[in-house]
Amino acid sequence: MTDRPAYAAAGVDTDAAERLVSRFAELAKSARRPEVLADVGPFAGLFKLGSYRNPVLVASTDSVGTKVKIASLLGGYQSVGHDLVNHCVNDILTTGAEPLFFLDYIGNCGLSDDAKAELVEGVVEACRATGCSLLGGETADMPGTYADGDFDLVGFIVGIVEREAVIDGSAISEGDVLLALPSNGLHTNGYSLVRKLFGIGVDGDADGQRAVLNASVPSLEGTLGEVLLEPHRCYLDQLRPVLPHLHGIAHITGGGIPGNVPRILPAGLGARIGRSSWRVPAIFRLIKEKGGIDEDEMYRTFNMGVGIVLAVASEAVRDVHSQLPEASVVGEIVVGEGVQWGT
Amino acid sequence: MTDRPAYAAAGVDTDAAERLVSRFAELAKSARRPEVLADVGPFAGLFKLGSYRNPVLVASTDSVGTKVKIASLLGGYQSVGHDLVNHCVNDILTTGAEPLFFLDYIGNCGLSDDAKAELVEGVVEACRATGCSLLGGETADMPGTYADGDFDLVGFIVGIVEREAVIDGSAISEGDVLLALPSNGLHTNGYSLVRKLFGIGVDGDADGQRAVLNASVPSLEGTLGEVLLEPHRCYLDQLRPVLPHLHGIAHITGGGIPGNVPRILPAGLGARIGRSSWRVPAIFRLIKEKGGIDEDEMYRTFNMGVGIVLAVASEAVRDVHSQLPEASVVGEIVVGEGVQWGT
Repeated sequence: MTDRPAYAAAGVDTDAAERLVSRFAELAKSARRPEVLADVGPFAGLFKLGSYRNPVLVASTDSVGTKVKIASLLGGYQSVGHDLVNHCVNDILTTGAEPLFFLDYIGNCGLSDDAKAELVEGVVEACRATGCSLLGGETADMPGTYADGDFDLVGFIVGIVEREAVIDGSAISEGDVLLALPSNGLHTNGYSLVRKLFGIGVDGDADGQRAVLNASVPSLEGTLGEVLLEPHRCYLDQLRPVLPHLHGIAHITGGGIPGNVPRILPAGLGARIGRSSWRVPAIFRLIKEKGGIDEDEMYRTFNMGVGIVLAVASEAVRDVHSQLPEASVVGEIVVGEGVQWGT
Repeated sequence: MTDRPAYAAAGVDTDAAERLVSRFAELAKSARRPEVLADVGPFAGLFKLGSYRNPVLVASTDSVGTKVKIASLLGGYQSVGHDLVNHCVNDILTTGAEPLFFLDYIGNCGLSDDAKAELVEGVVEACRATGCSLLGGETADMPGTYADGDFDLVGFIVGIVEREAVIDGSAISEGDVLLALPSNGLHTNGYSLVRKLFGIGVDGDADGQRAVLNASVPSLEGTLGEVLLEPHRCYLDQLRPVLPHLHGIAHITGGGIPGNVPRILPAGLGARIGRSSWRVPAIFRLIKEKGGIDEDEMYRTFNMGVGIVLAVASEAVRDVHSQLPEASVVGEIVVGEGVQWGT
């Protein structure tokens, strides 16, 4: 096939797109499970399901949000690939599901082929680490919809769990203990606010913004950029052995603890959580001071150092805790509703 | 919960987002199959798989591309919801799969809640029409990444097919007949070029652009805007009864016939296709003249009136054709490679 001058002039280069698809297909091979019949196939990916008694498919979609803006400034494309997969894996893990396969979507204007490939490399690395196949993906060049050099990164995951093993919060009862596993930073939420506070990815002066991101901040371990780009942690490996003991799992994303813990609670039950029961990482103190943000609002916007919250029957806590030494007891299930803050 | 002044000032209104999620959850209920255990659930959707002997999951992701720009100008949000679902359903249909469930993603800046709800309404209507559950979705407000009022709409689909019934083109052999089913317009490809030619969704003067779209064009049945927003056709209902007779199915998307038919052909085989064997809709002539675009390039960029191409054993053609009276015989499989144009 020859060149497509008119379409290329409209900002869409389909030959380059085909070269990129081949490059993605090569990358996807390194995250391929034996069940895959065709990944990044002509029009769809095929995944042969193994043997299950009573299988439930669990699916979720998410994006990395405007964390991509910081990745653009610092060239940290691979890391947001990890963010994307890990966020999705955690979302389906809340039901007890193991990931099977993943698909990614990159919408963009003028993102370089190398940047696109780095995004997909990050996705592939994280898929491999979580035992998940990259079964397909799509890259859409959309001049006019995205600002030049801007992109969005969207992921879609399918996992599986036996019907009897589904965790849906219905077993949660009064007196259950709440355990928390730490986040390693903002994960993928609150970046629009943080970018506004620090003037990152908002307008013109990219060099000045890079200087802000690359500066060491005494209270942080590393530069502001490093701390903000820390990839969303994945909790799959830690939680897998204790899943049978868990009554409920809340992934702490947008809305923080009060926005996410109540989502798994049966009617009539609330969560009493002590804010002093875990260490809030320095980045959140820095954001609070920089923005003069009210303490309660901080807890409603950010994860504040908690990546995931588990509800466990009190008699199983010792056993679960021994297998999750990193977990903190942060509260308990009480009669009521929503989150009641304690100390 | 109270207001979140700081986060709202950064362009993200999480309370409004929660109200919208409830609205989406209501909509999703109308496209719910009995297998759904939880749709638009807390963190993931759950779908109980029925009984299959040797099930293969088939997944695909796609976006509507910059057709969304025309929808924005004319307020035709529901129609792009149909585009999205139908495109994805056709993609997995190429393997013989029935759709099970769908998830959508809306990335945007400043799109109204009503516009978002219309997008999801369109998605739900098309899901219901194709027997597919809307199992989840995500809306991300991304000030700075998207231009104000702009959005991207991405879909993910999962379908299922028994291993023995997978259509993958491997059965295609020399002498197979190629049948084509008509498209009803551009479907979802070539919009960046068309918008450039007609000056639509590129810069400032929205009223002037609406006037162009709302003008009647003598050669077209309807206004330019109506013809350009015609939703991507879904071929599921037509093809379902003839699937066992099909050796291969190519969905004619970006790259047109020469970019898509070869994707299903075994090595050493090509497709000889007569361009005069079907009627090219008037919109493509209009685009060709407006842009002074070379004939070959038109066929490499647009579907030119063909939505799907089927490879059928010559002895089965009469039977298939009788069940698909709308289909045209457009060519045959020959020794060679790629697409060879005939008359």
